[in-house]
Amino acid sequence: MEKTNPFYQIHTPEDLRRLLPEELPQVADELRKFIIDMVSLHPGHLGASLGTVELTVALHYVFNTPYDRIIWDVGHQAYGHKILTGRKELFSTNRTYGGISGFPSMAESEYDSFGAGHSSISISAALGMATASVLKGETDRQHIAVIGDGAMTGGLAFEGLNNAGVSRSNILVILNDNGISIDASSGALSKYFTRMTASKSYNQFRNSVWDMMGGDARLSFPKRFISKMVGAFKSVISPQAVNLFESLNFRYFGPIDGHDLHTLVEVLQDLRTIQGPKLLHVVTKKGKGVKEAEESPTLYHAPGKFDVRTGKILSSGINLSLAPKYQDVFGKTIIELAKANPKIVGITPAMPTGCSLNLMMKKMPERVFDVGIAEQHAVTFSAGLAAEGMVPFCNIYSSFAQRAYDQIIHDVALQKLPVVFCLDRAGLVGEDGATHHGAFDLAFLRPIPGIIISAPMNERELRNLMYTAQLPDNKMPFVIRYPRGRGVTPRWKTPLEIQPVGKGVCLCEGGDTAILSIGAIGNNAKKAIEMARAKSGKAFGHYNMIYLKPLDEDLLHEVFKRYKKIITLEDGVINGGLASAVCEFSAKNGYTQKLIPLGLPDRFITHGSVADLQRECGIDVDSIAHLLLKSI
Amino acid sequence: MEKTNPFYQIHTPEDLRRLLPEELPQVADELRKFIIDMVSLHPGHLGASLGTVELTVALHYVFNTPYDRIIWDVGHQAYGHKILTGRKELFSTNRTYGGISGFPSMAESEYDSFGAGHSSISISAALGMATASVLKGETDRQHIAVIGDGAMTGGLAFEGLNNAGVSRSNILVILNDNGISIDASSGALSKYFTRMTASKSYNQFRNSVWDMMGGDARLSFPKRFISKMVGAFKSVISPQAVNLFESLNFRYFGPIDGHDLHTLVEVLQDLRTIQGPKLLHVVTKKGKGVKEAEESPTLYHAPGKFDVRTGKILSSGINLSLAPKYQDVFGKTIIELAKANPKIVGITPAMPTGCSLNLMMKKMPERVFDVGIAEQHAVTFSAGLAAEGMVPFCNIYSSFAQRAYDQIIHDVALQKLPVVFCLDRAGLVGEDGATHHGAFDLAFLRPIPGIIISAPMNERELRNLMYTAQLPDNKMPFVIRYPRGRGVTPRWKTPLEIQPVGKGVCLCEGGDTAILSIGAIGNNAKKAIEMARAKSGKAFGHYNMIYLKPLDEDLLHEVFKRYKKIITLEDGVINGGLASAVCEFSAKNGYTQKLIPLGLPDRFITHGSVADLQRECGIDVDSIAHLLLKSI
Repeated sequence: MEKTNPFYQIHTPEDLRRLLPEELPQVADELRKFIIDMVSLHPGHLGASLGTVELTVALHYVFNTPYDRIIWDVGHQAYGHKILTGRKELFSTNRTYGGISGFPSMAESEYDSFGAGHSSISISAALGMATASVLKGETDRQHIAVIGDGAMTGGLAFEGLNNAGVSRSNILVILNDNGISIDASSGALSKYFTRMTASKSYNQFRNSVWDMMGGDARLSFPKRFISKMVGAFKSVISPQAVNLFESLNFRYFGPIDGHDLHTLVEVLQDLRTIQGPKLLHVVTKKGKGVKEAEESPTLYHAPGKFDVRTGKILSSGINLSLAPKYQDVFGKTIIELAKANPKIVGITPAMPTGCSLNLMMKKMPERVFDVGIAEQHAVTFSAGLAAEGMVPFCNIYSSFAQRAYDQIIHDVALQKLPVVFCLDRAGLVGEDGATHHGAFDLAFLRPIPGIIISAPMNERELRNLMYTAQLPDNKMPFVIRYPRGRGVTPRWKTPLEIQPVGKGVCLCEGGDTAILSIGAIGNNAKKAIEMARAKSGKAFGHYNMIYLKPLDEDLLHEVFKRYKKIITLEDGVINGGLASAVCEFSAKNGYTQKLIPLGLPDRFITHGSVADLQRECGIDVDSIAHLLLKSI
Repeated sequence: MEKTNPFYQIHTPEDLRRLLPEELPQVADELRKFIIDMVSLHPGHLGASLGTVELTVALHYVFNTPYDRIIWDVGHQAYGHKILTGRKELFSTNRTYGGISGFPSMAESEYDSFGAGHSSISISAALGMATASVLKGETDRQHIAVIGDGAMTGGLAFEGLNNAGVSRSNILVILNDNGISIDASSGALSKYFTRMTASKSYNQFRNSVWDMMGGDARLSFPKRFISKMVGAFKSVISPQAVNLFESLNFRYFGPIDGHDLHTLVEVLQDLRTIQGPKLLHVVTKKGKGVKEAEESPTLYHAPGKFDVRTGKILSSGINLSLAPKYQDVFGKTIIELAKANPKIVGITPAMPTGCSLNLMMKKMPERVFDVGIAEQHAVTFSAGLAAEGMVPFCNIYSSFAQRAYDQIIHDVALQKLPVVFCLDRAGLVGEDGATHHGAFDLAFLRPIPGIIISAPMNERELRNLMYTAQLPDNKMPFVIRYPRGRGVTPRWKTPLEIQPVGKGVCLCEGGDTAILSIGAIGNNAKKAIEMARAKSGKAFGHYNMIYLKPLDEDLLHEVFKRYKKIITLEDGVINGGLASAVCEFSAKNGYTQKLIPLGLPDRFITHGSVADLQRECGIDVDSIAHLLLKSI
């Protein structure tokens, strides 16, 4: 590595700001190399951060961070930001247990003005911060929200724009337009951005006004004057705003090339002096600098380890004895079901590849709907489909389903519509950390009346639950939550059978202690029981509930009549989930056994490997076995 | 009443469609009178339905309902629709226990294509239904979403538009633009609609093209041709869409006068023949036909009983001995606090009058933010304010807070930001029914780590909780949930004191049975204990928890050590709320007392007076007293 590159002298953005403008491209190039080197060895999000290298350098060069606030939407494009703001040396710990977070984190750095992980929040957060600055009289402070074109489809972003448009605070929204979220961006907005970027005349006019001001003279012209001229022209051609953002009272600038550092710096310097809400449209290339990533942005969104020289993703070798990913079991099973049941359709809010609905998309494109980053709409749209007799499988990551909570209650459950919710990434997700763990789903769904909540322990149960949910007999919303990653059954393609609603199963019995588990975490219980039995020679009971709601009260009576100690096990929060349901059952029926709740404790769980995190929560095999042995 | 008016011959829309176009104005006039007469005697939402009388008549005249689907957003503007679709005779039961719902309800009528109550859902639901029609080959079916300009600010509406813009289904969005939601609409969108309506040239051009086609000849010209001409003109003046909706790939028509029945019918007939997503901008007057309601739309949104002749709202007489509304205690107390603490700001998503933040708005306009119907943004905006050291009081109706669940978790609690959430309309709200009961808040908030959840039993506690939440000592999100309507303390302006966090209080003790209550429903327990004591001569314990989280475990130990039977009482769902928390505590600590959970059962609760609904749920004074007497 060329350590004489000024990049290596940058410890804080102050150091960056001491450089000459002509030194910045070197910094950007080396920053890009650094990101590529690091992510090739320490897997994380690649494409997004490569697309924002120049933007990151320009922002920290022009703005007085951390006094000025940069809010990164979603935040997986902020690696460059982290590296330039004092975390270069720590960056090899990115996303590891005890290491730095893969997303901005207020606890981690004063440069991370606002935490992130979920999408579409940056405009609202920036507006709140900008409003605070107005109220505190800090009118020189700048507030910059950097948001992708994908995140812009989220309703929250629109709500923020609508409110910001009537604000007088210093807010600059940077639309980082790469036409991609994780999969290709979908929806009318995305097409509109493409048209805007392609269309010349409006921008040409802007540019000619700009050029008319002439080179350096530009800086001496008050921006208000330029803006007035542009405004005058517009009022000739149309009395109305000619641009979506201008409709919402934003001053619109761009589109400009997001990899042209010189222009970026110049435009941002100009924008600094303009008051009020403004939007800069920046066109970037996701994966910029790695040819393979530019060509296959979905694959290289978070590619795992790869070879820096060739760009090739390093496969850990195909191992046919491995169990499949739950995602693929879902993706293949829905096709199987949809072939037999023409009413089945698939819905995903911008995660076709992540949830494997892309498989069905290829086979039955007219029956799969990628609705954009729009979980609320995904649910209400599914409700509309169900109201007309279709059988929508609405697949949402568990932690993102939090964003559609009202729609699940109001538009689905209250309307008694049999939408099938497949909640992917339920439980601990690992390296993505606190924002992405599917920790709350069991607890927030259980209070909803008239809803079925299930969690399979293995591939067969996932398939059977999907089969059961789509049968004409089912008239209720039906939730199936399952984890990220691999299951336990290499030969997963079992015959489809009804999974009786509200019925759990006994996996083994004996002894004084029983575990009641729900979902795939039950496999830890299974192994723990084997381990404890091997060590102690004692038997334990294990009951796989499968359904949280309706709860199998017959099975619970059986368990409570037989065992002295009862352990509940779930990979969601204890408060409100299976543990609560079993406590309520016990209290209602006057049982007096000792109940031991295992699950996620009442705090946010950090990032790290799933194994690390399970250990922290005491739901790994060893911890459970230890508890069983103690219970004898 | 003039029973010879054709209005009285209409039992279904089929009857309406048999009339001649020239008879329609009579129908509209009589329908308006009918609504005014009815609502003056049987209180409900007035203004919204008066604004949509002509639109309702036109829609059912032009479209083949119920085969064609009309989806009313929010739904309080659908009284005319209900009356024209077979519920004229039932209409006097509107919003009463056992009567018809004040909102569209799929269970109530096949003409109510989709249920409603919450805002901004209609476009998504209509798109789902329209997509189902395409898949089922029912390409002649029309799907119409009627949505107000207020509801259009909700992010869900935008998500729906974004997705609908790339759909080929038959969806017509009718923007019912009256500049008002309940209070005046706020945000950039609202200003934009005003500019659109005010601006002439674009519409004039449209009109001239329209007129060029000439009177009846118009009908014989293919709409595609007209549209092409308009399109050609636009491409001359700008290569981009000139209108926000056109940016999103909607065909835009309007604005037209929503009270001109002739034009409405004509335009809707034309639009029927146009495929794909289209939007008709209709300008209406909220409260149309009642002068006072037109002039004071907020007051006449749901005015209670009024005199049909004078329009005057019938006051039940000022009674100084009445306790104040919790809303007013909130509204006055926040001013008191804000005078002393300059960091306090108020945030409301479009409910300044409903929650009484309008009081502070008048006194400190720069410190109150009405962000539009945008609960998600309200929360994340508050988070941004708190990140910069402000103390935001974010006031949201409990049932609408469901829509900001992810933002409460991800943008506030995970970021450890001390936002104060005042959840108004918690518990049973009465006549608004299932969509509006604040039934789930305790249950969905409790699983969130690092959050304080409280509910005052009276005005003093509300004030003290508000005072405590804004103290610099508090570093956590702080929820205060309180009900709609009057409290119990006429002389409510008590000195502000700290309400110790996580501490409940003993209200009375004795006997073998204790009630643990949270929130204002505790007053029912108090009266029930008095009643039961009067009848039996026995004492009972009563403990007011005040905080659900952190739970006062010291107090619980005291209670569990002393009493044999323990009743929990809350006006939220039993599953997951206080009952669950106490069951968990009991199980964790090995207590074996009988626990009796009182609260909302595991089903959606209908509409009716709060007294009726409390009785249905067994949480009224009589039911509780009865339970206490049984427990002796």
